[in-house]
Amino acid sequence: MKKGMKITVQNVMDLLMEPVGRLQNTVDTLKSGDPDMEVKGIAIAFMPTYGVIQQALAKGVNLLITHEGLYYSHHDNTETIENDSVYQNKRKLIEESGIAIFRLHDYIHRYRPDGITAGLIQALDWESYVVEHQQAASVLSLPVMTVREIAEYIKRKLDISFVRVVGNVSLPCTRIGLLAGYRGGGTLSIPLFEKEKLDLIIYGEGAEWETPVYVRDAIHQGKQKALIVLGHAESEESGMKNLAEGVKEILSYLPVFYIQEKPLFQVI
Amino acid sequence: MKKGMKITVQNVMDLLMEPVGRLQNTVDTLKSGDPDMEVKGIAIAFMPTYGVIQQALAKGVNLLITHEGLYYSHHDNTETIENDSVYQNKRKLIEESGIAIFRLHDYIHRYRPDGITAGLIQALDWESYVVEHQQAASVLSLPVMTVREIAEYIKRKLDISFVRVVGNVSLPCTRIGLLAGYRGGGTLSIPLFEKEKLDLIIYGEGAEWETPVYVRDAIHQGKQKALIVLGHAESEESGMKNLAEGVKEILSYLPVFYIQEKPLFQVI
Repeated sequence: MKKGMKITVQNVMDLLMEPVGRLQNTVDTLKSGDPDMEVKGIAIAFMPTYGVIQQALAKGVNLLITHEGLYYSHHDNTETIENDSVYQNKRKLIEESGIAIFRLHDYIHRYRPDGITAGLIQALDWESYVVEHQQAASVLSLPVMTVREIAEYIKRKLDISFVRVVGNVSLPCTRIGLLAGYRGGGTLSIPLFEKEKLDLIIYGEGAEWETPVYVRDAIHQGKQKALIVLGHAESEESGMKNLAEGVKEILSYLPVFYIQEKPLFQVI
Repeated sequence: MKKGMKITVQNVMDLLMEPVGRLQNTVDTLKSGDPDMEVKGIAIAFMPTYGVIQQALAKGVNLLITHEGLYYSHHDNTETIENDSVYQNKRKLIEESGIAIFRLHDYIHRYRPDGITAGLIQALDWESYVVEHQQAASVLSLPVMTVREIAEYIKRKLDISFVRVVGNVSLPCTRIGLLAGYRGGGTLSIPLFEKEKLDLIIYGEGAEWETPVYVRDAIHQGKQKALIVLGHAESEESGMKNLAEGVKEILSYLPVFYIQEKPLFQVI
């Protein structure tokens, strides 16, 4: 786009949705602010926490693009917290500032390849090992490493302090399934093990009674399988960082910031 | 019950359901085996993994009572794994052995107080600190301890190697909300913080973008809140161990075993 042109919140949203077309049912809506407002600067983050919104405002931007929603609910259900002061303070901060907040979740997951998964693979320097990008998972064929070596490598590359593992940490792995975000559920993850002949699945988040228990059962049956759980933000943050780089290039005349928060969890 | 009486699988199920009455919609069904079979021995466990079923059979029992389901799905949905060998091997082991497997999930959570929560509180030696048992949570008032002290105490009492924490580990806490199992979701957990004036919530499992992010927002707003995530099995196993003690007393002439597995996850 040309310098000097006015770009609105709606223009930026259109730009981000364009690779996919328009989805009918999506959580990707403008959560706050005026779509016709001229964009003065953009902040991008994984999660629009109170602290992230404060940082965005401090940087003087008026558009925040995040992967997750505002109020601790995938579908923006705020019924049970209408009288909660944390919710009310956050809402007040947003409304009084006039900041536009756009959630980019479903669209970026529908980029080809999935923009979040691609960001994770790039952060891990694993692009050359990709065998196939499926809709919700990518299959990789890595030089042999043990589960522990892979876990340590991931921690170093993503700069995270821990991962959770199911299985034998000495198991050598080459065929790996990678699922960013909340795709660790049994319906998506479990069938991949046999269908794709995987040694290891690495996912962001999933129910503890689903895939982890399947892996334990497989091990009880003498099969060589393992699981690494990264954490939700840990698995998706790289995709949003990547997006920020892309937005910086395309809208190079606007200030564009990536806001990273400290890890949500610590292990004791 | 009198020695010498024949007790069937159905009799044991009736005994366990009796405190609640009959639920219309429940996942607590006989997953395998014949309800009229005479019970020769009972094994109780949190999760009916392949290894647990093998151990139960090795002990010569023909009834296994578990809190969670067989096939990595709360509602026994096996559509996506019908051709999976791990699933097929498990199903074969169960069918060929004839073992009866009863899931005791909804009923034990509806005991008054919740049998799973009560087991956790007892394992933590916190019975005398209970302020109120609500339907899905218990509120406790503890002598002041920091989040770290509470985490270390829990690890020692439950014999677990790690917990995950959100917030300042030096925060002194007294008012605590305790939610066993998958009750860490925002709808159940978040409103408790203000309604019950809690410093800390301790739950088993919940979505990472719900309560943990609320706690982070609260902290960003200068509020003193924290969260400890135990893990699903870690929060519910004590309740099933307790049940085993109860069943041993009532059916004292039958062999009754509790089968405990190693923790599902390790941290790297």
